[in-house]
Amino acid sequence: IQTDALWFDQDEANRTTLGAGDPVRGDIQDGADFRRARLAATGQAWDNVSYMLEMDFGFPGRPSFMDVWLDIDDVVGSNNLRIGQFRQPFGMDGLTSVREMTFLERGLPFAFLPFRQIGATLYGCDSDEVMTWAVSGFRYPTDFNGGNIGDNGGYGMAARLTGLLMNNGPGRGLVHLGGGYSFVDPSNDSFQYRSQPEVGIFETGGGVPAAAPTFVPPFVDTGIFQANNSNLFNVEFATALGSFYSQSEFYFVVVDRPGQSTVGFTGAYSQVGYFLTGESRTYNSKGGVFGRVKPNHSVGRGGGLGAWEVAGRWSYLDLTDDDILGGTLNDLTAGLNWYINPFTKFQFNYIYAMLDNPIYGDSEAGIFAMRAQVDF
Amino acid sequence: IQTDALWFDQDEANRTTLGAGDPVRGDIQDGADFRRARLAATGQAWDNVSYMLEMDFGFPGRPSFMDVWLDIDDVVGSNNLRIGQFRQPFGMDGLTSVREMTFLERGLPFAFLPFRQIGATLYGCDSDEVMTWAVSGFRYPTDFNGGNIGDNGGYGMAARLTGLLMNNGPGRGLVHLGGGYSFVDPSNDSFQYRSQPEVGIFETGGGVPAAAPTFVPPFVDTGIFQANNSNLFNVEFATALGSFYSQSEFYFVVVDRPGQSTVGFTGAYSQVGYFLTGESRTYNSKGGVFGRVKPNHSVGRGGGLGAWEVAGRWSYLDLTDDDILGGTLNDLTAGLNWYINPFTKFQFNYIYAMLDNPIYGDSEAGIFAMRAQVDF
Amino acid sequence: IQTDALWFDQDEANRTTLGAGDPVRGDIQDGADFRRARLAATGQAWDNVSYMLEMDFGFPGRPSFMDVWLDIDDVVGSNNLRIGQFRQPFGMDGLTSVREMTFLERGLPFAFLPFRQIGATLYGCDSDEVMTWAVSGFRYPTDFNGGNIGDNGGYGMAARLTGLLMNNGPGRGLVHLGGGYSFVDPSNDSFQYRSQPEVGIFETGGGVPAAAPTFVPPFVDTGIFQANNSNLFNVEFATALGSFYSQSEFYFVVVDRPGQSTVGFTGAYSQVGYFLTGESRTYNSKGGVFGRVKPNHSVGRGGGLGAWEVAGRWSYLDLTDDDILGGTLNDLTAGLNWYINPFTKFQFNYIYAMLDNPIYGDSEAGIFAMRAQVDF
Repeated sequence: IQTDALWFDQDEANRTTLGAGDPVRGDIQDGADFRRARLAATGQAWDNVSYMLEMDFGFPGRPSFMDVWLDIDDVVGSNNLRIGQFRQPFGMDGLTSVREMTFLERGLPFAFLPFRQIGATLYGCDSDEVMTWAVSGFRYPTDFNGGNIGDNGGYGMAARLTGLLMNNGPGRGLVHLGGGYSFVDPSNDSFQYRSQPEVGIFETGGGVPAAAPTFVPPFVDTGIFQANNSNLFNVEFATALGSFYSQSEFYFVVVDRPGQSTVGFTGAYSQVGYFLTGESRTYNSKGGVFGRVKPNHSVGRGGGLGAWEVAGRWSYLDLTDDDILGGTLNDLTAGLNWYINPFTKFQFNYIYAMLDNPIYGDSEAGIFAMRAQVDF
Repeated sequence: IQTDALWFDQDEANRTTLGAGDPVRGDIQDGADFRRARLAATGQAWDNVSYMLEMDFGFPGRPSFMDVWLDIDDVVGSNNLRIGQFRQPFGMDGLTSVREMTFLERGLPFAFLPFRQIGATLYGCDSDEVMTWAVSGFRYPTDFNGGNIGDNGGYGMAARLTGLLMNNGPGRGLVHLGGGYSFVDPSNDSFQYRSQPEVGIFETGGGVPAAAPTFVPPFVDTGIFQANNSNLFNVEFATALGSFYSQSEFYFVVVDRPGQSTVGFTGAYSQVGYFLTGESRTYNSKGGVFGRVKPNHSVGRGGGLGAWEVAGRWSYLDLTDDDILGGTLNDLTAGLNWYINPFTKFQFNYIYAMLDNPIYGDSEAGIFAMRAQVDF
Repeated sequence: IQTDALWFDQDEANRTTLGAGDPVRGDIQDGADFRRARLAATGQAWDNVSYMLEMDFGFPGRPSFMDVWLDIDDVVGSNNLRIGQFRQPFGMDGLTSVREMTFLERGLPFAFLPFRQIGATLYGCDSDEVMTWAVSGFRYPTDFNGGNIGDNGGYGMAARLTGLLMNNGPGRGLVHLGGGYSFVDPSNDSFQYRSQPEVGIFETGGGVPAAAPTFVPPFVDTGIFQANNSNLFNVEFATALGSFYSQSEFYFVVVDRPGQSTVGFTGAYSQVGYFLTGESRTYNSKGGVFGRVKPNHSVGRGGGLGAWEVAGRWSYLDLTDDDILGGTLNDLTAGLNWYINPFTKFQFNYIYAMLDNPIYGDSEAGIFAMRAQVDF
């Protein structure tokens, strides 16, 4: 469960840009919402078969399928086969659990990811857990119920390879390098890339003030445009030493369009974190991502301060190329996290969003966001 | 799970009133439905942190968030802090669990309650559990997914204080007195108070007879009206002695309107119950409400009659003041409950609803309702 | 969880028929989807009271109520009473669990069944478990939330009786004979019978190719027609010997219409299965249906081939009578099932659908379908 509260401070230019010329329609309201509320059933169907069924009830008006899959272990050597809907193997940020993110939301380049689609993947790691690999095929796009249809395309693939250049054990030095490739031929012959400024809430029903947007609108948005297929590339780089860790990625997508020029978009982010209370960020060597933070001294009946972490991020997304005028967004985020025990944390983010819209020009917004999270 | 079946007997004036002049549109259909079907995950995240995630699937077309919160114990002295969506601390009837209600639905003044909103509350009781207190702040109104947005208001607070004037132990005499206050400044600058006649079913989809209402319409309804804020007050009084218990509340709300006169509405109910099989109603001294009925002799493989209870209620809601013509409703209800074990009961209610509508005049309806309930 | 993937091969006449004259609108798209994803809570509320609350999240856009009931044992002799929403006692195919079906979907005559409705049933079997019986009353039609309303009808009943003419134990010879009767007076005074060709997927949202159907359309369909009530009859016959088993049913429904002639429709199916790996199909003698397949040697860490089964079915549904031009469909299906352990299986079906439409004439379609299933 993640409960969020947000406060927005936009300049006039930002309100005008987001309202497509109308500052009232672009005036984002403060608010509070459940960002995620998920129930999952996981288990072992046999000694080599496991499954997961996870639903999210936080979306307005409907429950959505999250991870819904069955795993069969050791089908090709020590590689596992997964069938169902799952996060496609692409991008360190996208594969990090939402329960273990440093900030409230993933970085802006998340907009490029195929993410959860219905398909099959073969994945594994070497016996020393120095390298991980995964390759998958899927139907695209999959709706929130896991459905996809289409005779003309509607397929995609993704692959990811990571390795540890150094791993001296927890807190003693770690260097992670990775890369990914994904090809997608969408069944509806179109794409849309867009992103909110790394926060988002919704309200539905009759309680919304008149004329105000009922959700945080995307700051950058290509709109829906015709496309044959896309080729997506990324590079990942992460380090950890003592109480410090960093994680950076660069993304590049090339989209082939029917009867029009090919367009390319880029994104990147770089983030650092430091634990004031002496913890080290753990690394999940089977998944090739950072893992959970466990406070050295949880706030419990016996006292304890929990873990305190300060963090910073720069995030970049450029969705303008040729005749696609999606805009360019730079986000600077400062974060403070208080882990009161391994399963409960409070997060505070201040995001300074600098938007360059090709039509309305430059504008800025400041956002203060809080989250209370408990998982189980 | 609560499965309901209802039969309606309306006089012609009542059909005309509810159909706004058209007796066909006001002809409530007999029916059957699941009133509530809830799944909850609750647990302990740490020795001083607990959580609850409860969804209701009984609403037509969508699951709705019920109690979704995390609790931290002993944050200020022995007081607990709760963050998320929960029933705001106001009114003995509203805070009594739906699994432990004497009748199928709460009394008519329930229409005034802020009830479940997203926010935070600090609550506790003294070490002898003679008094309970709670104070909360919340966003208002929260939609069925826990979302609320709005720059102009959208906040509320509620407070409740209860005490036991006498408590000689189970069945030996108990007197409960309590009161509450709530202030709400809604984000959409409007209110609507309304109520069904203490029963309600729905049907959606194509199976509904033409022209008939698909649900039980509200008998009294202020409509949506412009408002700045509301001040809500109540008083609670309850007693228990032997197999007898009683519970009564009085509610009064004053609504401040922009450029118009202030309006006030009132509501009240008084209910009594008596166990024919000798049980006593338990009292939850931490929550300041009545608790669960456990039959002395459950109906099981070893025999037993279960617990049999007779109950009666008068309920009153006046939503007419000044230019707001919501109507006045008096309900008299006779109830028979059969608790076959602590987790399963059958309830039978006969409700005689006397409606005074400012436009269509007086009318009456008789309703017979049955419920089978099991919880776990 | 059931994950399906489908590929369609239609002749031009079939596309034209299903598109009501437009071959583009009748061009069924290949696709993948979750056919079912269900979570259930079941348990014992007391030594003689059990309950089940099951939701399916596989339907587009909403969770739907499946089995939601409470059972009280031994209320009349050794007969049990069930209250809530459940599969009405009619038809061996309909009462077989979806987790234990030989093919991906039930046979075509399933279109006639009242299936899940809100009501009450009394059911039991003799002490030797040679015969089973059940009789039920229900509201009709019940929507996906279990709701039904209506003063004018809206009631139905169903009854089923089965017996074993021979039962020499697992694999040593079994002959099952059964029959059912159901009467329904619908609240909306209308019926519609229709069926997809024994497969079905959905996609919702913006990813659907333009003009293509977003789901597999019904091949035969009476449309909605006025009706007073229906009388439905069926006969069941099943056998098992060694690794072979067979199951057949014949259905006949007579519908009484206001001011028009009575119409009658028929359906039938016959299916056989054979385990190449030596298993026998178990029989659930309390329910009067076939049970779960447990491989002799599951595919696990210790090796094993699992269970391999070949199966065939002929299925028939005639929805044309008098002025109702619903069409006639014959399906021939070949199936291959691989049970890798008792809880996980892969199914492969090839369905050859032969449609006789009264307006567009004869047409044919071939469908290849795969399913991965895990339950728990």
